[in-house]
Amino acid sequence: MKQIEHLLGFRKSIKVVDATLRDGGLVNDFYFTDAFVQNLYKTNIEAGVDYMEMGYRASKKVFDESKFGKWKFCSDEHIREIVGDNDTDLKIAIMADIGRHDKNDFDQKVNSPVDLVRVAAYIHQMPEAIDMIEDAAKKGYETSCNIMAISNAQETDIKAALEMLGQTPVDCIYIVDSFGSIYPEEMARVVDLYMNAATKYNKKLGIHAHNNQQLAFANTIEACGDGVDWLDATYNSMGRGAGNCAMELLLGFLKNPKYNVFPVFKFIEDYVIQLKKDGIVWGYDLQYLMTGLLNQHPRSAIQFTKDKREDYAEFYKEFLS
Amino acid sequence: MKQIEHLLGFRKSIKVVDATLRDGGLVNDFYFTDAFVQNLYKTNIEAGVDYMEMGYRASKKVFDESKFGKWKFCSDEHIREIVGDNDTDLKIAIMADIGRHDKNDFDQKVNSPVDLVRVAAYIHQMPEAIDMIEDAAKKGYETSCNIMAISNAQETDIKAALEMLGQTPVDCIYIVDSFGSIYPEEMARVVDLYMNAATKYNKKLGIHAHNNQQLAFANTIEACGDGVDWLDATYNSMGRGAGNCAMELLLGFLKNPKYNVFPVFKFIEDYVIQLKKDGIVWGYDLQYLMTGLLNQHPRSAIQFTKDKREDYAEFYKEFLS
Repeated sequence: MKQIEHLLGFRKSIKVVDATLRDGGLVNDFYFTDAFVQNLYKTNIEAGVDYMEMGYRASKKVFDESKFGKWKFCSDEHIREIVGDNDTDLKIAIMADIGRHDKNDFDQKVNSPVDLVRVAAYIHQMPEAIDMIEDAAKKGYETSCNIMAISNAQETDIKAALEMLGQTPVDCIYIVDSFGSIYPEEMARVVDLYMNAATKYNKKLGIHAHNNQQLAFANTIEACGDGVDWLDATYNSMGRGAGNCAMELLLGFLKNPKYNVFPVFKFIEDYVIQLKKDGIVWGYDLQYLMTGLLNQHPRSAIQFTKDKREDYAEFYKEFLS
Repeated sequence: MKQIEHLLGFRKSIKVVDATLRDGGLVNDFYFTDAFVQNLYKTNIEAGVDYMEMGYRASKKVFDESKFGKWKFCSDEHIREIVGDNDTDLKIAIMADIGRHDKNDFDQKVNSPVDLVRVAAYIHQMPEAIDMIEDAAKKGYETSCNIMAISNAQETDIKAALEMLGQTPVDCIYIVDSFGSIYPEEMARVVDLYMNAATKYNKKLGIHAHNNQQLAFANTIEACGDGVDWLDATYNSMGRGAGNCAMELLLGFLKNPKYNVFPVFKFIEDYVIQLKKDGIVWGYDLQYLMTGLLNQHPRSAIQFTKDKREDYAEFYKEFLS
């Protein structure tokens, strides 16, 4: 059982990472207004958030620029328009999705407003992920690595990937519950596995959870209690499918006085509720529970949502047959 | 850390209690259609649910019968109209809310379709709760006791209440997170406290959680992993304010082959979604997070919801000023 001091006190090494534009962008194809992004940036500073992920830096060779908002591509110029010289304590992150990125799109850190390059990869893509990490680190960025969809990977393979990552310059390795299928009891064991490698190689650990089973926040604070320091959250859970750990829940939980939940409430009231009214849909629903339970990618559940279907039982039958 | 076998196997002593009509009734003043109740009963049987709580047996001296649906009062006659002789494995429960009940409304068990009388009381009402428990047990019912709002009670007082209850015929003592303010780490400690008394007096433990911080399911499975056997849930979380632990999540999690989540999906599709379309509102929202965070009764948040207010930040300020 964890110690009571852990709940009353706080750990300075904890970092809160706002992934609203990046994971939330998957819901609205990254078409955020400038006012949304500017105010989110301002709110993150007021709330004491440590990192703000501005989106993906997707390759324009892979994706058609005319079909997405600019935060799918996150050019240094577009980021500069929001953050200027970013003379604040809030660090700026972008994501490189392995196979959909181009490392030549990343300038030297000294020329960029970006602080952290977050590399996301499936476990079979580790060599390419490591190549990207090494390139970004050499250019002067902090780096992290998301090993995605681990609920479908073998422990032996995860251990091998952690060994490989341990030997890179990566600063932080993320536990990612892509399918929202992990229960807190399992999360504790996953953290144990990751912590062995993190301790051996002096790496930080992070957690990125999904809310298919209403466990994104619970799994995040379980991992936090087990020693994971970098915690991803999004405003009002905005994110693909069932969404992520809610920023308002996380900042309400964390006791470090540097965090302040009030501006988060205000931003949700002023900007996020409007997205929902405009018909942008995310959050817990039966179809996401089903893919979570069955440990599957949520894409079919997302399609179910897009099609405005309500025949939940039939959808479940489609999996069983 | 809990053992991996716990997640793969199952514990026969676990009982699932459907509280949809009772806690859900607080949202629609107990105006459920007969079709809803009949099909919920049928669904619970198909799903392998162990107890179905039909509602409160509130005193008609305290509440005006014309202002509520019949499940606020749960007469034996109305229950019989749904369950007949209830020749099934599903047991029938009703709740006696201390101070709002009349023990003379409870006939001898032999004349009643009710199996379990659930007594709910604040900690300062223990003597009256015990009087009710003893009366119901003498009449032949199983009994349980909810000690409500424990997040506002002192541990010393809870211990004293558990000692008092231990010496009654009560079958099961419930941990109740009325305000949805308890985190899983705290839940583990609360269970520890209750388990000491339960072991000493050979009582079962139960858990009734609220979803203010999206932790109702997480706290329920945390408690379950710590040895709590009676688990309350409601279909699609229907319940006061932020609602309860979702039945679909709980049955998806439990591994006993007697449980079957599919009929739950079907019932939600056929009956619960319609309630939402009719304008009945429950479930996680910022105002409930706020009362949960501040460890307060959700009544002001419920009023905020009823008034269709959206000025969340202003609502939070009202607490702080």
